[in-house]
Amino acid sequence: MKITVLKNILDANLQTAQKNQRLLESHGILAINIMASPGAGKTSLILKTIEGLGKEVAIGVIEGDIASTIDADRISQAGVPVVQINTGGGCHLDANMVANALDTMDLKKMDLLFIENVGNLVCPAGFKLGEQKRVVLASIPEGDDKPHKYPSMFSQTEAIVINKTDLLPYLEFDMEDFKSTVNSLNHGVKLFEVSAKTGHGFDAWLSWLKEEIKLLRK
Amino acid sequence: MKITVLKNILDANLQTAQKNQRLLESHGILAINIMASPGAGKTSLILKTIEGLGKEVAIGVIEGDIASTIDADRISQAGVPVVQINTGGGCHLDANMVANALDTMDLKKMDLLFIENVGNLVCPAGFKLGEQKRVVLASIPEGDDKPHKYPSMFSQTEAIVINKTDLLPYLEFDMEDFKSTVNSLNHGVKLFEVSAKTGHGFDAWLSWLKEEIKLLRK
Repeated sequence: MKITVLKNILDANLQTAQKNQRLLESHGILAINIMASPGAGKTSLILKTIEGLGKEVAIGVIEGDIASTIDADRISQAGVPVVQINTGGGCHLDANMVANALDTMDLKKMDLLFIENVGNLVCPAGFKLGEQKRVVLASIPEGDDKPHKYPSMFSQTEAIVINKTDLLPYLEFDMEDFKSTVNSLNHGVKLFEVSAKTGHGFDAWLSWLKEEIKLLRK
Repeated sequence: MKITVLKNILDANLQTAQKNQRLLESHGILAINIMASPGAGKTSLILKTIEGLGKEVAIGVIEGDIASTIDADRISQAGVPVVQINTGGGCHLDANMVANALDTMDLKKMDLLFIENVGNLVCPAGFKLGEQKRVVLASIPEGDDKPHKYPSMFSQTEAIVINKTDLLPYLEFDMEDFKSTVNSLNHGVKLFEVSAKTGHGFDAWLSWLKEEIKLLRK
């Protein structure tokens, strides 16, 4: 019975996700589902992206957290429209939560929507939200072995951003090993090495986002 | 129906957890459930504890991961009995998995059992395993706002270990703010500041473990 219930939940979620995706595509909005461990720097990545792209690209943000409005407050201070979703105890966003958030946003004035998922390297992998692209954020202090331990997350994503490269001098992190593991799980996945603190590596990340917005609107 | 299923699962889990706890207590074993984000340093904390206590205290380890045996291999190299549990896709250990692991371990020769949960700041909070004490490990690079965002985890634990203090000079982490948040969620919770890399702060952590073993056997 447990398995049937789960299957029903996932089927219903997928249908709502597809509806969200059609709505976003009809407005030419590139929606990115950002998934990562707690503290990998999801909000910092979004803030640095707003800093770099905000003048030429209209950005919106949906913030997912168990509790608190800390992240939405930070985004709001950057002058970008943001909706905070608190899941209560839930370990991931689902398509219905995102549908409710989209209802309250002005989609006519948006090119790029970041959906920041709950900090979790497990649960969000199973739930599509209506995004065009999934991005997994890994951070140097978490260690280079994470793709081995959380393969679903790393194998089902279109891009991986490796954050906090500014801490590389202080930690043992084998970048080549990390890349080779990721490539064996997810051949040809896009990889970006960045520091949301210093801005290192952001050119390539911002170019990719702009290119994906263009491709969506072709 | 979804809620009923969940309630049944949690009730069954609690019964098995109580059984595990009685079994462990009958052998005078202090069992610690270690919970944290991916990459916070759970295995490193255990390894450094083995280094400091291994000669006077008989330690055993149960390693929980979605996939891989990386952590069990590391523990095994330290010469300590270890059982790896792979949850498949599950985002937490449950009492039944731990019961199966205990079946294969020699409990007569053990004083202290570490149960390293799956790297996750959400799911493990709801599932007791049979531990005497819960320990949440937080790490400096994750940021000082984590207790606000994951309150269940921080409010239901007996001790909090703050790891990677060696990185404090390179990051903005407000230790006083972190402590005050944690105290408002969980008044009087034990706090240890450590670096599993340098050994900083381990004296207090090791003393607490020894004291708790003594108390259990009184």
